[in-house]
Amino acid sequence: MNRRGRLITLEGGEGAGKSTLLAGLHDHLLQRGVRLLQVREPGGTDLGEAIRSIVLDPSHPHISAESELLLMFAARAQLVRERMLPALDAGQWVLCDRYVDASYAYQGGGRGQPQERIAELERWACAGLKPDLTLLLDLSVSTGRARAAGRGAADRIETEADAFFERVRQTYRERAEAEPERFRVIDASQSPDKVLQAAVAAVAHLFEVDT
Amino acid sequence: MNRRGRLITLEGGEGAGKSTLLAGLHDHLLQRGVRLLQVREPGGTDLGEAIRSIVLDPSHPHISAESELLLMFAARAQLVRERMLPALDAGQWVLCDRYVDASYAYQGGGRGQPQERIAELERWACAGLKPDLTLLLDLSVSTGRARAAGRGAADRIETEADAFFERVRQTYRERAEAEPERFRVIDASQSPDKVLQAAVAAVAHLFEVDT
Ligand SMILES: Nc1ncnc2c1ncn2[C@@H]1O[C@H](COP(=O)(O)OP(=O)(O)OP(=O)(O)O)[C@@H](O)[C@H]1O
Ligand SMILES: Nc1ncnc2c1ncn2[C@@H]1O[C@H](COP(=O)(O)OP(=O)(O)OP(=O)(O)O)[C@@H](O)[C@H]1O
Ligand SMILES: [Mg+2]
Ligand SMILES: [Mg+2]
Repeated sequence: MNRRGRLITLEGGEGAGKSTLLAGLHDHLLQRGVRLLQVREPGGTDLGEAIRSIVLDPSHPHISAESELLLMFAARAQLVRERMLPALDAGQWVLCDRYVDASYAYQGGGRGQPQERIAELERWACAGLKPDLTLLLDLSVSTGRARAAGRGAADRIETEADAFFERVRQTYRERAEAEPERFRVIDASQSPDKVLQAAVAAVAHLFEVDT
Repeated sequence: MNRRGRLITLEGGEGAGKSTLLAGLHDHLLQRGVRLLQVREPGGTDLGEAIRSIVLDPSHPHISAESELLLMFAARAQLVRERMLPALDAGQWVLCDRYVDASYAYQGGGRGQPQERIAELERWACAGLKPDLTLLLDLSVSTGRARAAGRGAADRIETEADAFFERVRQTYRERAEAEPERFRVIDASQSPDKVLQAAVAAVAHLFEVDT
């Protein structure tokens, strides 16, 4: 870890509770005196939000898996360079609602794009920026969908079948197993309070590490 | 060549005369009884046109070189799959106003993205689709800019400095030298008639090839 800030990413399927946790974690870190930047993917920059509106638009139903992967990384490459790296260099912590693991899970596990292809994009598009901690909110697909259903019209990706989201969940879990140091898997079927508690325990470690 | 149609791409700097030649070549091929699809890059699909409006928009002045490269290939991956391959498979010829060589020239030569990175994207994003013939309209930067200036507001890429376009031209020429079988370099300082004549001579060969 060369930078002064810390990068925390939140991952998980639809309706797992990422945005809910993000709000709680944000408040917790502010109370601990951390200067914070909070961003979401795809998005977080003018370019990224323009890409987001394309990629999540249900009126583009036939986007190829290759184009989707490239668009996600186009938004991410901009976000890393324009906002995340400058913030981290200035000592801020960055809280990110999805990051590279989401491409492995959705475009890889979900749409079948090869992992090695994604790894290659990660190498150059993300300028080598890896999360210090990734909180994976693990939840059954049915529970997640039921929660998300309360929130209004589905975007293009949310309209996928359950089997798609099962592959997404499975890929997330495999990545967490492969990198236990970086990941903390949180049982997202717990109450929001319990989820936040688990996240707070996980981030506590980031204050202790001396770099 | 496995497909029944032929892919002809037009390349060259700003104002070299690609669109002008395209119109003449289109008419010529129709007269010869060829069924044609004409497309432009970036664009040519709903997704591609949405990407085009982002990437050429002067109000996104700070798009990173990485994001620009990824966006160009996102548009291209869609165009190849949604329109070019189906047309070629159905026996149509495809006339394309820019294609992969433009990424080598602009994002590679112009913006410094490594050639190997672009080659890797070409391998999987374009589904292996290579032009049968590439017409390179070669023209001095100053003449091209003077021609293009007559056409109204500059897009984001057209606002680059001359040195950028010199690198673009140089890269195009190097690619033509490296693949003389595929490229035909046309002196674009000639009259539109002469340019069309040279193009017609080059495409004549495509009728003779038995595949
Ligand atoms: N731990 C929880 N228990 C029960 N409901 C929850 C919990 N966390 C969040 N919710 C509710 O579930 C819904 C989805 O939560 P949230 O928007 O935080 O999920 P998300 O992971 O951000 O979804 P998306 O991937 O679509 O952005 C919201 O209505 C939220 O209030
Ligand atoms: N051979 C030529 N001689 C002189 N003028 C030309 C010639 N070909 C085209 N022009 C003129 O130059 C201008 C630019 O031509 P054109 O739009 O065809 O270029 P282009 O390569 O498509 O440019 P861009 O890269 O910006 O799309 C037009 O006004 C056109 O009429
Ligand atoms: Mg959310
Ligand atoms: Mg043109």
